[in-house]
Amino acid sequence: MLSISEKALKMPASPIRKLVPFADAAKKRGTKVYHLNIGQPDIESPKEALDAIKNNTLKLVEYPHSAGILSFRQGLAKYYQNIGIDVTENEINITNGGSEALQIAIAVTCNPDEEILVMEPFYTNYNTFALQNDVILKPISTDIKNGFALPPMEELEKHITPKTKGILICNPGNPTGCLYSKESIQKLGEIAKKYQLYIYSDEVYREFCYTDEPHYSCMHIKGIEDNVILIDSVSKRYSLCGVRVGAIVSKNKDVMASVLRFAQARLCSPALGQIASEGALDAPQSYFDAVKAEYIKRRDIVVDALNSMEGVFCPRPMGAFYAVASLPIDDSEKFAQWLLEEFQYEGQTVMVAPLGGFYATPGCGKNEVRLAYVLKEEDLRAAMKCLEVALKEYPGRV
Amino acid sequence: MLSISEKALKMPASPIRKLVPFADAAKKRGTKVYHLNIGQPDIESPKEALDAIKNNTLKLVEYPHSAGILSFRQGLAKYYQNIGIDVTENEINITNGGSEALQIAIAVTCNPDEEILVMEPFYTNYNTFALQNDVILKPISTDIKNGFALPPMEELEKHITPKTKGILICNPGNPTGCLYSKESIQKLGEIAKKYQLYIYSDEVYREFCYTDEPHYSCMHIKGIEDNVILIDSVSKRYSLCGVRVGAIVSKNKDVMASVLRFAQARLCSPALGQIASEGALDAPQSYFDAVKAEYIKRRDIVVDALNSMEGVFCPRPMGAFYAVASLPIDDSEKFAQWLLEEFQYEGQTVMVAPLGGFYATPGCGKNEVRLAYVLKEEDLRAAMKCLEVALKEYPGRV
Repeated sequence: MLSISEKALKMPASPIRKLVPFADAAKKRGTKVYHLNIGQPDIESPKEALDAIKNNTLKLVEYPHSAGILSFRQGLAKYYQNIGIDVTENEINITNGGSEALQIAIAVTCNPDEEILVMEPFYTNYNTFALQNDVILKPISTDIKNGFALPPMEELEKHITPKTKGILICNPGNPTGCLYSKESIQKLGEIAKKYQLYIYSDEVYREFCYTDEPHYSCMHIKGIEDNVILIDSVSKRYSLCGVRVGAIVSKNKDVMASVLRFAQARLCSPALGQIASEGALDAPQSYFDAVKAEYIKRRDIVVDALNSMEGVFCPRPMGAFYAVASLPIDDSEKFAQWLLEEFQYEGQTVMVAPLGGFYATPGCGKNEVRLAYVLKEEDLRAAMKCLEVALKEYPGRV
Repeated sequence: MLSISEKALKMPASPIRKLVPFADAAKKRGTKVYHLNIGQPDIESPKEALDAIKNNTLKLVEYPHSAGILSFRQGLAKYYQNIGIDVTENEINITNGGSEALQIAIAVTCNPDEEILVMEPFYTNYNTFALQNDVILKPISTDIKNGFALPPMEELEKHITPKTKGILICNPGNPTGCLYSKESIQKLGEIAKKYQLYIYSDEVYREFCYTDEPHYSCMHIKGIEDNVILIDSVSKRYSLCGVRVGAIVSKNKDVMASVLRFAQARLCSPALGQIASEGALDAPQSYFDAVKAEYIKRRDIVVDALNSMEGVFCPRPMGAFYAVASLPIDDSEKFAQWLLEEFQYEGQTVMVAPLGGFYATPGCGKNEVRLAYVLKEEDLRAAMKCLEVALKEYPGRV
């Protein structure tokens, strides 16, 4: 019989994608829509990356090595060494973006029905990677009141069962923008060591930290080298979302040998993207400094504006380019749809991401939204003005 | 506990990869190794593809649409329409190569423990895509004596059970080079209709057909539009293996809606590869004509040489760029290793792919090898001379 698999029927639709038709309709009516809903930065890719592509002299785009182009992996190893992460090119396997990196990391380490602890709210596609591997995500609540910080480790320990295989963190976090403190990461390391759990450390926003401290990675912790699997990507770091280049990095030899088998099964990651990414490694520090300064400015515009609105609370995120705000509303999904369907202020409106879809626990995030500050200053100010007016007009205000 | 998943432990190592260290050692000793073991063509990519990359003016490589860049899908739809496959851009989802296309096609249509019939010998990674989805491949024997043609449909019907979900074919075939006749494809269509099975039609070698007839696809059969899922790729067609661009094409709306969900979970296929592939669509017919003429010449060199050797039989393949030969040897794995480890003729040797790994049935293919005729004429002639001498010297000759 021609039917669809049970897994396909279970694949969740993104809560943001449901809103796209409403955004399209708004645009058709002539309303300008400020897209604060997606993590697609408007920052230019480094010139070094774009030049590497334009100046390539390939006559034939061959399969690169399944683990990734050697010179790129060597360059990437140097990048990690420069930030105190002691790895060689053999401890790196290039993947089709961070997405495939996490998908393979779970496939390699977890059997069906095993569990991974994850701080909620979390990036919605974690659900799909778990589903694809028949693995269960066990959400641990974090709280907007303390900026979604890691919960006390005793709280985390309560959720560990014989089925727990690892802990998945995103640091800095999507959707929260939360940057975990060095102390809390070290405590997480102690838990991983005590219970012999993997830490899947999604650090694709590493370059976007707004404290004066360098980013502290689980890869920096001594004594748990075999536990940590780093999930990385060039997408956000170099504004190269479309090239689909990420990496699995680990000092665990068994893990890396198995990762390579999975990598061989799909032959390789994209050659052209790897060439661009290798070029991007030469981007000067001034590129990152400028990007960081820009995001700090944008963040402050958004966070300051939000906190000046009555009934709104938005902790100041210290990483990534997202902010989560709690709003005085009945239901953020309804609100987001209303913004697109019924509201406009001077011919403009805002598209936001309702936070419910980022929680595994039903009912959570109903008054929260995620705002990606990936637009230029002037647009962000206009978007905040829209939001301020909208919150006054919204019929579901509480 | 830090352990590796059962699935990872089961991931088969490629039978060819096991030989790589021996090839490397041979090269270190100064022996020239002719690589007839891999399907990496040496033909140049079309200028149109390379130019599209060099001339791109992107300042920022953004996420393309999860289904693929619209203009590329529109161009691809035209390509299909030109070869009599009636599809629109909405019936195409771009993937990370043909590998991901088949992986997703199986994930979308099969539940764990369901079965897919596949003609053996078959492309070894079919095993890994099945394993990743907990699906069972049921091999149907084909025979070198009739060039690995599709078996009679009554034979195929014997293997259909209530668990059978579909039939996977590769046409033209890797590793066999077999091009299925129009009649046999139509009969396959009848079976698919009668038992309501999917046909997963891997046609990545479509452009490499050496009869005067146009390629006949399962997509051409009327009345089974919902049954057929086409697996495609630009890798071989345009010598663009490294760009990682393939496609799932189907008129089955439920299938395509689910495919999109899986595609969204990994965000998108590589943008730069899609730009190159869209450029490749403009390659003139003369590009394909030249490539085809070159492969026919190469095929004839290899097949004529093989059939002139005592005890060797090699059916003349009418598609792809592989030939399978049966050799007068005890064990093709041992022979392939011996060629690299112990043999040389005038400082040269040959690397071939033992066919055992392409069979699911244990013991099959023990005296067969696959030869990819992806080298230039002069190298192929030298490689055939090596093989001729080697077969005389090989201690395991039978």
